[in-house]
Formats: sequence, structure tokens, C-alpha cells
Amino acid sequence: MERQSDYNRLAVDELNQLARQWEDRYEAYKNRNLKLDMSRGKPCPEQLDLSADMLTILQPGDSIQAADGSDCRNYGGLDGIPEAKELFAQMLGVSRNEVIIGGNSSLNMMHDTISRAMLHGVYGSQSPWGKKEAVKFLCPSPGYDRHFAICELFNIEMIAVDMLQDGPDMDAVERLVREDDSIKGIWCVPKYSNPDGITYADETVDRLAGMTAKARDFRIIWDDAYTVHHVSDNHDQLKNIFAACKAAGNPHRVFMYSSTSKITLPGSGVAVMATSEENLQTIRKQIAVQTIGPDKINQLRHVRFLKNMDQIRLHMDKQAAIINPKFELVLNKLESELGGKNIASWNKPNGGYFISLNTLDGCAKEVVHLAAQAGVTLTPAGATFPYGNDPRDRNIRIAPTFPSISELETAIDVFCLCVELVSIKKILARELHK
Amino acid sequence: MERQSDYNRLAVDELNQLARQWEDRYEAYKNRNLKLDMSRGKPCPEQLDLSADMLTILQPGDSIQAADGSDCRNYGGLDGIPEAKELFAQMLGVSRNEVIIGGNSSLNMMHDTISRAMLHGVYGSQSPWGKKEAVKFLCPSPGYDRHFAICELFNIEMIAVDMLQDGPDMDAVERLVREDDSIKGIWCVPKYSNPDGITYADETVDRLAGMTAKARDFRIIWDDAYTVHHVSDNHDQLKNIFAACKAAGNPHRVFMYSSTSKITLPGSGVAVMATSEENLQTIRKQIAVQTIGPDKINQLRHVRFLKNMDQIRLHMDKQAAIINPKFELVLNKLESELGGKNIASWNKPNGGYFISLNTLDGCAKEVVHLAAQAGVTLTPAGATFPYGNDPRDRNIRIAPTFPSISELETAIDVFCLCVELVSIKKILARELHK
Repeated sequence: MERQSDYNRLAVDELNQLARQWEDRYEAYKNRNLKLDMSRGKPCPEQLDLSADMLTILQPGDSIQAADGSDCRNYGGLDGIPEAKELFAQMLGVSRNEVIIGGNSSLNMMHDTISRAMLHGVYGSQSPWGKKEAVKFLCPSPGYDRHFAICELFNIEMIAVDMLQDGPDMDAVERLVREDDSIKGIWCVPKYSNPDGITYADETVDRLAGMTAKARDFRIIWDDAYTVHHVSDNHDQLKNIFAACKAAGNPHRVFMYSSTSKITLPGSGVAVMATSEENLQTIRKQIAVQTIGPDKINQLRHVRFLKNMDQIRLHMDKQAAIINPKFELVLNKLESELGGKNIASWNKPNGGYFISLNTLDGCAKEVVHLAAQAGVTLTPAGATFPYGNDPRDRNIRIAPTFPSISELETAIDVFCLCVELVSIKKILARELHK
Repeated sequence: MERQSDYNRLAVDELNQLARQWEDRYEAYKNRNLKLDMSRGKPCPEQLDLSADMLTILQPGDSIQAADGSDCRNYGGLDGIPEAKELFAQMLGVSRNEVIIGGNSSLNMMHDTISRAMLHGVYGSQSPWGKKEAVKFLCPSPGYDRHFAICELFNIEMIAVDMLQDGPDMDAVERLVREDDSIKGIWCVPKYSNPDGITYADETVDRLAGMTAKARDFRIIWDDAYTVHHVSDNHDQLKNIFAACKAAGNPHRVFMYSSTSKITLPGSGVAVMATSEENLQTIRKQIAVQTIGPDKINQLRHVRFLKNMDQIRLHMDKQAAIINPKFELVLNKLESELGGKNIASWNKPNGGYFISLNTLDGCAKEVVHLAAQAGVTLTPAGATFPYGNDPRDRNIRIAPTFPSISELETAIDVFCLCVELVSIKKILARELHK
């Protein structure tokens, strides 16, 4: 394939001519009344089919006793059944005394963690966070919009910190956390980050674990959502932050979360939280008032179905076989349509659920808007930043897993077309003002 | 059977002789090293077996689409699938737009309701409850210990109100609510109440719905946990409070809750909340930050298994057939062992999960303690009152459903024995001080 020209070096005439071509193509797509969705990190039906056997893995005659002898059908078991703790402790690299297994949503666990911290504080807090004049969180950005929504709900001030290729800008993080005791936490998706697909470097993990925090009850919210979710044969390795925190003398600093939402069934998965036993003791007392216990039958289903870490890896290989081609399709299309034109850059993640693309400054909102008008839904531009405000208006999150291959092909064609159109207009406007 | 003597009329010698007899019997029980539990309202395994088919009611080949076309396996469906709303709206006598279907625990829903009210307020609040100097709740007592625990967790001051035979003492409730704007709510288990088994009279419901509340964002927490849980052929009828609130011009006053915990499987049931659409709109915005959605597969399981209200009633008849004999056993034993002695009184509920017994004043703690020493666990004395403080130290909650018939027979024998012993000693002490 011919190497394409840098659009920034084209003459105004050439750009105008290109714009007319793209406009015609765009109108043609618009007339097709498409309805395609690349907005959320949702598994596709074929991925869900991989867990079909889980529906009937517990038969009426089977023992539904947990390892501790409790009847999984009845009340009780506040923090999960022992065999689920055992399995998911392995997944997160912690001991089984350092996990609690919850309901179907790790987001729910994170929300409730912050809610409890606001109302009661965390282990070691001198007062509830909500009693402070201001509570602030660091938000490596671009990041996960639902994390930011939790901060907004609880009126927690968000401070954006740049995501670099090895994780958050640690110089900025260290400086802020050292100086301001109203900074109580930081949101991290440390492996195959949402949306960049970046895995934190060992040094980043060590610096987070060891840095000096002015707030003595500072917490790292470690959302390890994609810990076994590879989309390439190159598997990123993430350093164990809990071990690093212990080694650095900050054993209570990290709250880790994960779930099987993108391993088994998103609506009916199992969520897990890991942290120090002291933290867990505090939390257990609080959740004992909230609930009598999680759905233990569903936990047992998961243990019987997933069995052990080897089986989880095999299962995730099957997931990867379904979604790898989708990631490749998107990456190839981006390269063939946008490569060399100097109007967009994007990452090539080894795992996770997203491809993160940066347009020229000031183009993202318009691209998402144009795509929507042609029937292609993307995550709203800005959503990956606190308060929905991308200061350079350039980041767009592409979620390629849910559409079929053919839908995805059309959707990404439309998307590239919109990037072209908006970029050309942006360059033309710039030329006009020269 | 011979009518027994009023212990209060026996001579000291006779009482001393009885005490020696009972002490011998008590020691004999103690030597048997019993381990029997009548502490919590837990279904027995035979009750759980009634829902065995639910485990496999969704087969891998079946459609797992909800009525709105959504794939129950995937993310989404914040407030429940339409067919679950339809079914449980009928159970609570509301419209399907007035319910949300949650996870496995109505307690969790109630906890979260209060938590949200403290942090953000409810629909119509001028400020979050937690910003007020004091927040108070009325607690009809005896009542449900887990309701009171929620108040304690959130530092909500509890004001005990007497439970009468037709519900809470409404004269007291009306007066308190009219005068004090820091009273934000009242806990109610309106049908087959925990622990008394009382169903609120129509007039009580109307007075709750219509009373003047100084706090404009006053809420009734209506925990209709036992709405289809009869243990007698006489079914109590509860007036629809939501309709009464609408009729009285207070449509947003009540939050109703129920669950299938004691219909299907306690750990793996489905919880429901019903209230005005305005209330629900406020709540939906908040839970949209907490979760992407509940376990829709489990909701679908419930709809496929329970089908409709007629099926629910048939299913509950089967439950009643298992637990009726246990209630009858306890009531017969109480009558034969304690009847006519003027040392205890108890209710005869038509439904619910408990028998509530009052001893002579100042005896409940000692009875529960003695029973525990003989291996029979009861709900801690005082638990049915705010702060665990039963001012007359007389109320004991008996939960007869979980033990087998033969276990229950032994347990209630031990219990009656303990009531006899403690009562005689109490009467003797009184005689001594005459």
C-alpha cells in the first residue's frame, strides 16, 4: 500500500478536493440508516456463549454446600464462600484472608467503598471523609468515566493527571499527594488501562506504593478489571501492588478490585475486593449492616465452572480468539485509512477492551457527533476525562468487542471518514487564519 | 390437661420445690450437649428444596432475552427486566412503573436508601439528611434488629414507639412526627411483623399515610417482607399504603420493599422496591453511578419459576405446609408448659417467621442466657429494641422455621424450662423483698 501524505502538508486546493470526496462518501453512509454501537466495553454474544454451561452447572441433585459446610442456598456467608476466596485470591495474587467476594459488580463495590469512606472514613481515618471541607481524588486521564461519575456523585473534586506510556505521570502524582492532605485517593486501571490499554511499569507501581502521602488515610483504588484479558500473544505483566505496598510499609494503602464480568457473564458475574486484613475487618463490620450476604450459589457456579487459574487462562484464550480479530480489524483499518496522514494517533493494546485514539486538537467532539449522525455511536467525547472535559478535545474511546466483524468494518469505515472530514476542515480553518 | 396454677399465687415452699425440680431437669439437658438454633428467621432445607428446579430452569439452549429484547447475560437493565417488574408490582399492588428490581437483598436496598438519603437527601429534600444536626427515626418496638442496626451505623437517633395489637401506637407517632422536623422516617414491617406477627389495621395504614409530618421529606420504610408468607388458613389482609398515601395527597411518602428471600432461596433471591415515579427517578440517577445493573439472569429465573401470583400462592402453600407444624408445635408447647402460670404471654401469628414471647419483667436476658448454656441459641434478648435495650427486659423472639421438628421439640422444652426457672426465681426474689 502506498504511504499516505501528511494532510498538514497538502495545499488548500488538495484539501478542498479531498473534503468534497469525503462528504460524498459520508452522505452515502448516512443514507444507509446504520445503527452501530462502539460505545461501551460489552462482550459480544459469542463471548457469552462460552459460559453457557454455567447456567446448568449446578443440578438439583448436586451438593450445594460450600467448603465450610454452609448451604449456599440459605442466608449467611457475609464475605463469600471459601472456595471462591481461594480462586480469586490467586487471580489477584493475594492470600485468601485478604479478599472478600461480593455480588455481580465490582463497580458497586468501588462505589460503596467511597460511600462508606465519606460517611464513616476508612481504617485509620480520624474522621469521615465527608466531614472534611474538601475531598479530592487524582484521576489519571484519559480514564474510566464510571470512576469519575462516582467522584461527581459524592462531590469529590477531581484532579486530572496525565497518563504516560508507563502509567500516570508519577512526578505530578508524588508532588500532589505529598502536599495536599485533602487528596484521599487515586483511581487506577493498572493493566490494559481503560481506555489506553497501558499497563503500569514496575517502577510506577513501586512509586505509588512507596510515595509519601500527606493524608494518612490515602487510598489507591486499584481496578484490576482486565487482569486476565489479553488480546495479543504478548501478555503484559503487572507488578503486584499489594506486595509492593507491604514492602514499602504502607500495607493498608491499596484497595484492589476485579470481577468476572468480562470472564463469564457481565450481568451475572462475581466481584472481588482485596486489601489488608485490617481494612477488611473495618469493611466487614459495615457491610454486615448492609446485607446478610452475597449470592453464594452464583459464587459456587463460578468456582465449579472456572475451577482454577489454568482453566481461567484457557477460557480467556477462547475469549481472545473471538475478539482478537476485531481489534486487528480496527487497527488495520486505522492504519490503512488514517496512517501517515498526521491527523490521528492511537495505541495498540495487548489486552483490555478498548482502542484509544487521539485526533488533532479540537476535533474529538465533532468526530463523535458526525459519526452519531451517520448511525455510529461512540463513547461521548470527553467522557474519558474528569467532568467530561477533555482539555484538548482529542481523545476518542473505541470499543470493538460487541459489534460483529461486518458491523465493525462498516462502523470503523464511517469513523475514519469522520476523522478525515473533521481533520481536513480543522486544517483548512487553520490555513485560513494564517 | 389440668389447668395449671398461677405461679404468682403459689407459696414460697411450693415455689422452692418447683425450682429444685426444674433445676434437676435443666442439668439433665445441659449434660446432653445440645446444639440447637432458634435465633434467626431462616428457612429449613426442605423449604429450599421447593425451589430446586430453579437451578436449571434456564437451559443453555433457551432464550435468555428479556421482554424488552435485551440479553439477560450482558450488561445493562439498571432497574430490572420488564417481566420481573410486572410480576413483583402485582405482589406489592403497584404499577410496573413504580418498582425497581434489584439484587439478592432487600436489606441492601433499604441500607442503600438510607445511605443515599444521608449523603444526598431524597426527592424533595432541601439538603442531605446527613447535613442536619440530628436525624431521627421512629422505631415501633419490638421490631427488626437489622433495621435498628442501619440507624446505628448512620448515627440516626432511634425513638422507640410501642407496638400495639393493630400496629404502632399511632397517637404517639402522629404527635412526634407533627412536632419534630428531625424525624425523617419510621421503620415498619406492616404484615406479620417481626417479631410480633401483627398486621397493621386499615386505620393504622390510613393514619400513617395521612398524618401531618413536620419534615417535608419524611419517609415510611415499609418492609413488606412477609406479604405472602402465611402460616395459617386465616390470611391477614394489609391495606395498600401506597394507594392510601396517594389518596391522602402524600404520594412520595412511602418506600416499599420486599424480596423472594423467603419465597425461593434466601441467598439468591430477588429484591424489589416500590415508590412513586418521582422518587424512582431520583434513585435511578444515583444507582446508575453505583452499578451497571442487577443480575438479570436471576431475575429471569425467578419469573420463569414463579410465573404469576397464582403460582406464588401455590408455592407459598407448600412452604406453609412445611412450617405450619413447627409453629403449631411451639404454640402447643408454650400453652402446655407455660399456659395459665401467669409468667409469660405470646402471640399466635397467622404468618411471618416468628413467635414473640414476653416473660415477666426483668427475665428475658436471663432466660436467653440459661438457654444458651444448655445449647439452645435464641435471638439475643433486647435485640428487638433500639440500641438492644428492652426497657422491661421481657421480649424474646422465637424463630421456629430452621430446626427440624424433633430438634424444635427439644429446643422449646429447654426454652420453657428456662422461662420456668427464671420466673420462679424472680417471684421468689420479689417475695423476699415483701
